[in-house]
Amino acid sequence: MHPTRHAPALPLRRLCATLCVLSLSAPALGARTAAPVPAPAPEAVAAQLRDAALAGHDIAYAWVSELTSRFGPRPAGSVNERQAAEWAAARFKELGFENVHIESFPVTAWVRGAESAQIISPLTQPLVVAALGESPPTPAAGLEGEVVMFASFDALKGAPAGSLSGKIAMVARRMVRTQDGAGYGAAVVARIDGPGEAARRGAIAFLLRSVGTDSHRLAHTGTTRYVDGRVPVPAFALSGPDADQIERLAALGETVRVRLHSSASYVQDAHSQNVIADVRGRERPQEVVLLGAHLDSWDQGTGAVDDGTGMAIIIAAAKLIRDAPQRPRRTVRVVLFGSEEVAQPVAPYGAFGGHAYAGSHKAELATHVLVGESDSGADRVYRLELPQAVVQGEFAKTALRVLDPIGVFGTLRPPEDAGTDVGPSVEAGVPAFALNQDASGYFDIHHTADDTLDKIDQEQLDQNVAAWAALVWLAADSDVDFRTRAGTSPPQP
Amino acid sequence: MHPTRHAPALPLRRLCATLCVLSLSAPALGARTAAPVPAPAPEAVAAQLRDAALAGHDIAYAWVSELTSRFGPRPAGSVNERQAAEWAAARFKELGFENVHIESFPVTAWVRGAESAQIISPLTQPLVVAALGESPPTPAAGLEGEVVMFASFDALKGAPAGSLSGKIAMVARRMVRTQDGAGYGAAVVARIDGPGEAARRGAIAFLLRSVGTDSHRLAHTGTTRYVDGRVPVPAFALSGPDADQIERLAALGETVRVRLHSSASYVQDAHSQNVIADVRGRERPQEVVLLGAHLDSWDQGTGAVDDGTGMAIIIAAAKLIRDAPQRPRRTVRVVLFGSEEVAQPVAPYGAFGGHAYAGSHKAELATHVLVGESDSGADRVYRLELPQAVVQGEFAKTALRVLDPIGVFGTLRPPEDAGTDVGPSVEAGVPAFALNQDASGYFDIHHTADDTLDKIDQEQLDQNVAAWAALVWLAADSDVDFRTRAGTSPPQP
Repeated sequence: MHPTRHAPALPLRRLCATLCVLSLSAPALGARTAAPVPAPAPEAVAAQLRDAALAGHDIAYAWVSELTSRFGPRPAGSVNERQAAEWAAARFKELGFENVHIESFPVTAWVRGAESAQIISPLTQPLVVAALGESPPTPAAGLEGEVVMFASFDALKGAPAGSLSGKIAMVARRMVRTQDGAGYGAAVVARIDGPGEAARRGAIAFLLRSVGTDSHRLAHTGTTRYVDGRVPVPAFALSGPDADQIERLAALGETVRVRLHSSASYVQDAHSQNVIADVRGRERPQEVVLLGAHLDSWDQGTGAVDDGTGMAIIIAAAKLIRDAPQRPRRTVRVVLFGSEEVAQPVAPYGAFGGHAYAGSHKAELATHVLVGESDSGADRVYRLELPQAVVQGEFAKTALRVLDPIGVFGTLRPPEDAGTDVGPSVEAGVPAFALNQDASGYFDIHHTADDTLDKIDQEQLDQNVAAWAALVWLAADSDVDFRTRAGTSPPQP
Repeated sequence: MHPTRHAPALPLRRLCATLCVLSLSAPALGARTAAPVPAPAPEAVAAQLRDAALAGHDIAYAWVSELTSRFGPRPAGSVNERQAAEWAAARFKELGFENVHIESFPVTAWVRGAESAQIISPLTQPLVVAALGESPPTPAAGLEGEVVMFASFDALKGAPAGSLSGKIAMVARRMVRTQDGAGYGAAVVARIDGPGEAARRGAIAFLLRSVGTDSHRLAHTGTTRYVDGRVPVPAFALSGPDADQIERLAALGETVRVRLHSSASYVQDAHSQNVIADVRGRERPQEVVLLGAHLDSWDQGTGAVDDGTGMAIIIAAAKLIRDAPQRPRRTVRVVLFGSEEVAQPVAPYGAFGGHAYAGSHKAELATHVLVGESDSGADRVYRLELPQAVVQGEFAKTALRVLDPIGVFGTLRPPEDAGTDVGPSVEAGVPAFALNQDASGYFDIHHTADDTLDKIDQEQLDQNVAAWAALVWLAADSDVDFRTRAGTSPPQP
């Protein structure tokens, strides 16, 4: 199980049993006395929400378990995605959320077909591949060609025009494992732009060593870019061991020929949807703290970690906040975005649910006070990033006092990338925070068939919920202006 | 990487650097002086072979790397298996082995076709399956049915006749992870006999939770049993997460229907082969210490661990013995068995290369003094098992003095199962030893597409070669009768 490889040095529950007792000096949630007592300070409520999440009584695991079991993979624009959205909306209503509704938008859906690959010379051997998202089909009989290998994407871009005519271009570069996921960004450009660059040089197909860090016979799919409305050549990710094999044959001096087949197709008039649910604020309900995750998933796994976990975290955190004795001042909004994974043939190419939300809620974005997204796996949160305006203020100090006992530290830098779904809102000026998850093991399973429920460690999941519930409570119950550092943070009751 | 998860507590090379220096009090191999000196004692030679293997200068890793790269998967009766055998024979000759030859025998080969599976109700979801070896194809359009789940194979056997008519029987039992691999034996009976028992009760197909210990979307194939010359229904292994998914849907109260397809086929007039190579003994060449491993592999991976590693270990050990300044008294024979993995439609059902060898060498088995097989993965050896006649004698004491520094201890029990390939020879009365490998992680990749070169840890491989070279030298240079405990062990020169 991957998550346990990256378990924190101290068991969180035990760590918190030692340290979190400090927070109990505040009145217990829900305590009843005859005489009126002051409401607990926001920091005390945040600590209590944190501890309630750590106690494991939240709904996160049950939610992702039932979601993935009932609906399995949820490709953008699919029936499974739509049914999962309808189920999620019904569950939100049962859980007591407000303003629950579905916002639909049109997409071009990409549908994986049958696919296969083989080395056909100098030996015959099946290869484990996955067509990249949006990749066009091969001819029905497949296509064959000699593999021309490049050590990096830059090396491919250095190949002369016409030099790949009739060949299959392959980029063999390995993704670097990093805790913050930055190795993905450095590698994924080859997946996004590789088919186009290969085609420009005459290649008939594109092969990529999977953008992943594992060593299993599982290929990592992912989106690639439309060029002038189409992905120009069939493109496939190879599993790591299959890329190794082609490299070794080349090192033995062999010319490697492969056969590729895919019957992928497109549905031009499909629809995807965002699911919205609010915990309405008690004083300034028009001010929104938005929590995002995405409901669609790649088609090979069941999207348990990407991004069932993210949804489970933000829903469970919002539900804890909803069930607190007093609502926060501001509204907490949960958005389950549709169609995050799949590019579109026209600009904007990706983050389609995110663009749809920022478009249809354009007028409200000015009163969106803060956004955050959970979409980096199922491992624990280890770092808090806040908008530049508040990284050194009282809000940050308070938040880190509450988060430090569960192993979350702070940084003076704002998020470099708050997330794909909230990206369009951030571009429109909404400040973003990030609760960075340890992504060391995430790219072992990211975008593979291995993204299934068993990869989720329930204790890590609870720690995420604890961090989100505490931080979001503090932001939603404050009057901090995260754009300009105005306001006191957090206010005393 | 699986093997490193099970790394020994102490690095072997460092451990041996501390302890193995003791063995250097014997004259160094190959030392030359003007006056004749006594040949080194067998124990000293064994220690020196052990240390040479640990130094990593043996051919094991290079051998398995080139084998798996050049020939990939080597299913019994396939072109790849035959070409690999021819290559191996040529390599044996280059390495200076004697009596190198190939012994061919007829087999019915089973060929995996296209295969797929989906849940079709209550949701649609692809399932990761692998047809079991020898499993017949489905109808071309596939077959569909309701899944009837059994918690164990015994529960299936308790179902009344006719109770599974038109249904698909599924055994959901999980294999238990054990160091000695015994969990496999307890689980595999459902794979061997499940299709027959399901068919007897009317089932149209058989599904099995993979006999494996991982949690990846990779199904573990393996042989099943012919009943009256045929496997009665199509049979598939499900990956662990796919079995989980069906179990969860059942727990949610859903009736699960699946569609199964396989175009597997048989080649009735195929041939497989054993490859034989000797290091001829200097005094009693007719007495043979036989080292076995198998050349065929399952078709999804490249048979790197099962059993490329086993071949690499015994070849490297025999090569070290061959290159010692003096040959051992007895012959050391390496046999690379063909067609180990695949059952046959007529008795004897399995171990076909092993049966072929025991049949064609029947007259020689009386002078086969000892046999051993390496076929339990790529992890380190941790225990020596010897024939009952010698477990308490001088031979065992000497062997354990040499093996203790590399983390191998002894036991008073003889091998329960010396291995599939040598099984027929053992049944014919040849004594067997075993160098037990730590199999804790072996069944994470056994019989899956994940059985590829990257799973081999070179330091663990070297430790195996060290153990085999040392033990086999002691046996081959002795006059011990492993059948009856006669002889002195090891003799002094």
